[in-house]
Amino acid sequence: VVRVALDLMGGDDAPVAVVDAALLVAAARPEIEVVLVGPLDVAERLLAARGASGRFALAAATEHVTMDEDGARAVRAKKDATVRVVHRLVRDGEADAAVSAGSTGAVLTAAVLTLGRTALRPALAVVVPTPRGPVVLLDAGATVEGSVEHLEQHARLGAAYAAVLGTDDPRTGLLNVGAEQGKGDQLRKDAFAALERAPLRFVGNVEGHDVVLGGKADVVVTDGFTGNVLLKGLEAALQLSGQQSPPVSAILLGVDGVSVVGHGAASAADIAACVEVAAQAVTQGLVARLAEALERQQPQGVTP
Amino acid sequence: VVRVALDLMGGDDAPVAVVDAALLVAAARPEIEVVLVGPLDVAERLLAARGASGRFALAAATEHVTMDEDGARAVRAKKDATVRVVHRLVRDGEADAAVSAGSTGAVLTAAVLTLGRTALRPALAVVVPTPRGPVVLLDAGATVEGSVEHLEQHARLGAAYAAVLGTDDPRTGLLNVGAEQGKGDQLRKDAFAALERAPLRFVGNVEGHDVVLGGKADVVVTDGFTGNVLLKGLEAALQLSGQQSPPVSAILLGVDGVSVVGHGAASAADIAACVEVAAQAVTQGLVARLAEALERQQPQGVTP
Repeated sequence: VVRVALDLMGGDDAPVAVVDAALLVAAARPEIEVVLVGPLDVAERLLAARGASGRFALAAATEHVTMDEDGARAVRAKKDATVRVVHRLVRDGEADAAVSAGSTGAVLTAAVLTLGRTALRPALAVVVPTPRGPVVLLDAGATVEGSVEHLEQHARLGAAYAAVLGTDDPRTGLLNVGAEQGKGDQLRKDAFAALERAPLRFVGNVEGHDVVLGGKADVVVTDGFTGNVLLKGLEAALQLSGQQSPPVSAILLGVDGVSVVGHGAASAADIAACVEVAAQAVTQGLVARLAEALERQQPQGVTP
Repeated sequence: VVRVALDLMGGDDAPVAVVDAALLVAAARPEIEVVLVGPLDVAERLLAARGASGRFALAAATEHVTMDEDGARAVRAKKDATVRVVHRLVRDGEADAAVSAGSTGAVLTAAVLTLGRTALRPALAVVVPTPRGPVVLLDAGATVEGSVEHLEQHARLGAAYAAVLGTDDPRTGLLNVGAEQGKGDQLRKDAFAALERAPLRFVGNVEGHDVVLGGKADVVVTDGFTGNVLLKGLEAALQLSGQQSPPVSAILLGVDGVSVVGHGAASAADIAACVEVAAQAVTQGLVARLAEALERQQPQGVTP
């Protein structure tokens, strides 16, 4: 059994969509136990209205962070916010994973404050479905200033996550403005060299279209500024096209626990998908595998 | 009459698509005079096969840059490359604008070498069609290292270009990871302050989705790294969706002449559209208006 702490008040359609998500999970995945985290009266009322009183464990949280607040600041101010309590349950061993469709900034801050970091900077990883298989894109916006060290760590974290998702020996590419070596700004040139030396199957530079079309790399690493701009652009383009769903969840890599963020506009089905992503990360031992990926030594080269 | 020098050998489907583009332009827009620039025998043979011998002015160029070459380097080595000759005709007053669907790097280098710069760094501007009107996105990849000075100049160039395209008093936004002031990396924070002081209708930060959905800004300014990644991602997403055409042309702002780059995969219709974009820039006095935009003084504030 995997226990997932779910933020009752996170997302544009919370708390209704969250309770409906819990019911969807309960119906489809009996091995996942959802803990609803929020005002108990709200949870009980919504469950009663669905004839589901007593179906879920509840955990009280009296405050929550709204989408129009500065997430990072609000989380610090509200000690009993739902987004803090879901992570506290994970820290205290009362849940295996935290899920919230609230403000990404709030989730990031709550996860780092409560669980602690295992990487220099955590990264937000998104799985982009492509015609040639899923692509893990990171950092999608946890950091804003890029550095070679962050890119190198995030590449390792992303590769470990792709492996957890079932891709054997994933190929990692560096997002750049051209495929040839030597392209890009100084950060990319330096990162290219670092990634070549890292214990990764590094396939070199990839471009914006490779994130969408797939086929060149299973993991695409970039700084959080570029990743965030690209992801938001792609989400809107896919939304406009009306044909393909944009990614609905992002997972935080580099904190000491499993934490999944849903899109603010997430539907009940989207939030249920986030819970399943979180549960899969738990059963696949994500946190331990990420720690191992960060510790792994660079391959021993021939010393000149 | 506007004379447009057209690179016969630029693009994946050149020279056939280029000659067909010239015929499309001649049929639809008699006030545009196309000069085909390339090997004369190739041009004459293709025109003869279409019963169009003598329909177009021809200018000889014996070399060309292929898509698999390093554009910048190849342009320097090949003095008689088509992409250099189209710009030389503009410099010498024998044409009003240059159009090529060849390598962007080659066009950039040829334009800067031949025409000279009018901005610190030229920018590549792309018009993204959105449900709420066109959005001018720049820099789409002419520079790779961002700086406040480049962003400020490019914002001015972009706003002048949007005005040339018919948007009165265009709104300019800074591409960032959130809408609120204070978001982003140090470059964005500094650029925000500079754009507030600039002679622009600055609407603050915008996000990746605003480039696709429109409505918040008519001009979106970013560094060439981010702009290039975003544009390539959007092109691929639109291509996958099969519903909306990606932008087919980019115009170079900040060189002393009109230079339009087509997508490498451009069809005859796409190349014809590039020629029309170039002709419109000429008739609207783009180069003079860009120069004026760069010279414009910041509004006189109240001195403290």
